[in-house]
Amino acid sequence: MAGDEIAIDAERFLGRLDAFAAIGATPAGGVNRQAFSPEDRRARRLLAELASARGFSVQQDAIANLFIRREGRDVSRPPFLIGSHLDSQLTGGRFDGALGTLAAFEVLEAMEDAGTETAVPIEVVAWANEEGSHYQPGCMGSMAFVSGTIPEEWASMRGHDGSLFADELKATLEALPQAAMRPLGFPITGYIELHIEQGPSLEREEISIGIVEGIQGTRWLEVTMTGQAAHAGTTALAFRRDAMAATVHALDRLYAEVMPGDERARFTVGKLSVAPGAVNAIPERVVFTVDLRHPASAELDRLEGLIESACAEAATQYGCVSAQRRIFDMPPAIFPKALLAHLREAADSLGFRSKPMLSGAFHDALFVARVAPAAMIFVPCRDGLSHNEAEYVEPHHAVDGARMLLASTLKVIGG
Amino acid sequence: MAGDEIAIDAERFLGRLDAFAAIGATPAGGVNRQAFSPEDRRARRLLAELASARGFSVQQDAIANLFIRREGRDVSRPPFLIGSHLDSQLTGGRFDGALGTLAAFEVLEAMEDAGTETAVPIEVVAWANEEGSHYQPGCMGSMAFVSGTIPEEWASMRGHDGSLFADELKATLEALPQAAMRPLGFPITGYIELHIEQGPSLEREEISIGIVEGIQGTRWLEVTMTGQAAHAGTTALAFRRDAMAATVHALDRLYAEVMPGDERARFTVGKLSVAPGAVNAIPERVVFTVDLRHPASAELDRLEGLIESACAEAATQYGCVSAQRRIFDMPPAIFPKALLAHLREAADSLGFRSKPMLSGAFHDALFVARVAPAAMIFVPCRDGLSHNEAEYVEPHHAVDGARMLLASTLKVIGG
Repeated sequence: MAGDEIAIDAERFLGRLDAFAAIGATPAGGVNRQAFSPEDRRARRLLAELASARGFSVQQDAIANLFIRREGRDVSRPPFLIGSHLDSQLTGGRFDGALGTLAAFEVLEAMEDAGTETAVPIEVVAWANEEGSHYQPGCMGSMAFVSGTIPEEWASMRGHDGSLFADELKATLEALPQAAMRPLGFPITGYIELHIEQGPSLEREEISIGIVEGIQGTRWLEVTMTGQAAHAGTTALAFRRDAMAATVHALDRLYAEVMPGDERARFTVGKLSVAPGAVNAIPERVVFTVDLRHPASAELDRLEGLIESACAEAATQYGCVSAQRRIFDMPPAIFPKALLAHLREAADSLGFRSKPMLSGAFHDALFVARVAPAAMIFVPCRDGLSHNEAEYVEPHHAVDGARMLLASTLKVIGG
Repeated sequence: MAGDEIAIDAERFLGRLDAFAAIGATPAGGVNRQAFSPEDRRARRLLAELASARGFSVQQDAIANLFIRREGRDVSRPPFLIGSHLDSQLTGGRFDGALGTLAAFEVLEAMEDAGTETAVPIEVVAWANEEGSHYQPGCMGSMAFVSGTIPEEWASMRGHDGSLFADELKATLEALPQAAMRPLGFPITGYIELHIEQGPSLEREEISIGIVEGIQGTRWLEVTMTGQAAHAGTTALAFRRDAMAATVHALDRLYAEVMPGDERARFTVGKLSVAPGAVNAIPERVVFTVDLRHPASAELDRLEGLIESACAEAATQYGCVSAQRRIFDMPPAIFPKALLAHLREAADSLGFRSKPMLSGAFHDALFVARVAPAAMIFVPCRDGLSHNEAEYVEPHHAVDGARMLLASTLKVIGG
């Protein structure tokens, strides 16, 4: 079997992208297809229907990961997985997740069209709740797949709309009655995920393929700065213990030190709340989150310490007290060299300009990499924009990504 | 007529404070006597009954300001007003407002006891809804008194409990059938208000009397900092337009410049919201309020400009845009020197340690000062605590305040 007999059907593939973009489409041209929502169920149903129409088997597991299987010659061998996710942010784009899932399905269809036989079964996977926009944490599907269990506390969790996770999960599973239930977590041969870069470097350098060698580590911190509430007008200067003043003093220093000091570091304060929260009340308490990223664990440790000391020093200066806790910790991942070599060969064989890179975002591949050889392929997106309704991928880049995924898969499974 | 013949009856006065503290008393030892509430009506009724018992006339106007009048020799002369308010915050203290109102009534009783004759009539006033805790805005009574009208929009306003302002005002007026109705706003000779400091400086310096020379002006600003939402991990440094980074940069500079540069200035950021508000999303928009206070209008203008330019510069530095608007503006009041001189003489004649000070909070005197000579007297409150059920004033400080109010009144009206 040789890859060159097999071809991606560009028109069909781009048509699929449009069809799924219509599910949960927002007026601004984006997608709101939160995990376990009615829109998410509709997208899963459509993929399942397309699969059945091609004679592929459809299965799901207890966390609602969706698997589309094309048999291999040796049914006893664990499947090779390709895919991504179908859920989106609240105001997400059309390609984040959908591109990789539909490209994987196109790969399966292309093989079917060409009557390609593979030794190992190949499965398209749509991991459940990668975004974590409806229920935290993100990457639930791949996390549960890798651990083989669903953490008890998830069941009682409520979404931002008050809905109970257990109810929505049940409804999502029941929306695919034809899908055979499958145990949570099973042996796999490997995994490749195609995704948009979600950054501008490929577009800027006019490189069509990024070969992702690893994923940055991510730590989420929650910092609480506590002062004393008092009247904005009557409180003497010496008596002000302003939690907001201490907070901005620490943060301004950290914005100036962390990223300018190391271009691989990322420091983001995405949430901040103030109590009591009255225009004329000196803030008693400010609680904010820090999203910290770096490819090296040791550097993450150092930065976490720097944040803690900067907040403590600012707290002292303003008569406040700071407390910091880690609410999420995702160690960096390095993908196996052998797998990456196959991807480079695939890119060369197709004449694509490619470059090695790191992912600043975490992806399901980060978790899957813990139980099997995994890697990722990036394609450019306009202005590096993602988690944004304006997210856009040039059709030829999308198609090249699918061709790269096909060629890579064939190289890795070796027919 | 000389003041030394007239004496405050400490026991009677402290008893009155206790009696009124019992109306709307909270389990925590505070008071919940919101304007126009049944508790507010009970307090007004009690004061009216005490007044009638002493032969003072009782009147009210269309906004439910309550006036207790003791005649002067020259009935043709406009009355001299002393007083404060009887309404409280939802979880307010026993002294904020009540102290000044009941001290003023004690002054009237002391004069009556001594058979003192004054040239001008003297009236105790309890201004309606100073706190604004039930219906916004605060200082309704003095505001309407000064303007001579009740803004139309007030009538249709609803309180936090859904009650209609017009209904509660009507019920409040009807609760005092014996009180003659009086036109809204009339000529007055002057006004003195005794109040607790609501700050810690008098207590800290062990000074029993504060002579308030003016009330700080207050401006509320709303600043919107707009950048671009993007992924916390994948966005290249050059592409980050972080509204939070720009905001804290501007605010840290302002905290360092505004108050340290002028001890009379107050700069408070009490509310701040972030959008989209996800841990892993670079903030697209930060909206925050600024409560700015200063005794000089020109300085408020300058500081407002400084805030605008600091935000604009920080916005430019971080690829954002800032917009600023004024949402509230209360000009400063400077009390007349002649009146303040009388207050200093009164304090000296009583052997009280006094100090000139500014009020950071606004009071009814701020409005009354627009139509007549007005001034305020502050007494210490424990830890500067106010708008708090733990608010407390030492009995001897309360009595000294009443004695100061009596002596000041006599000095000002000059018998």
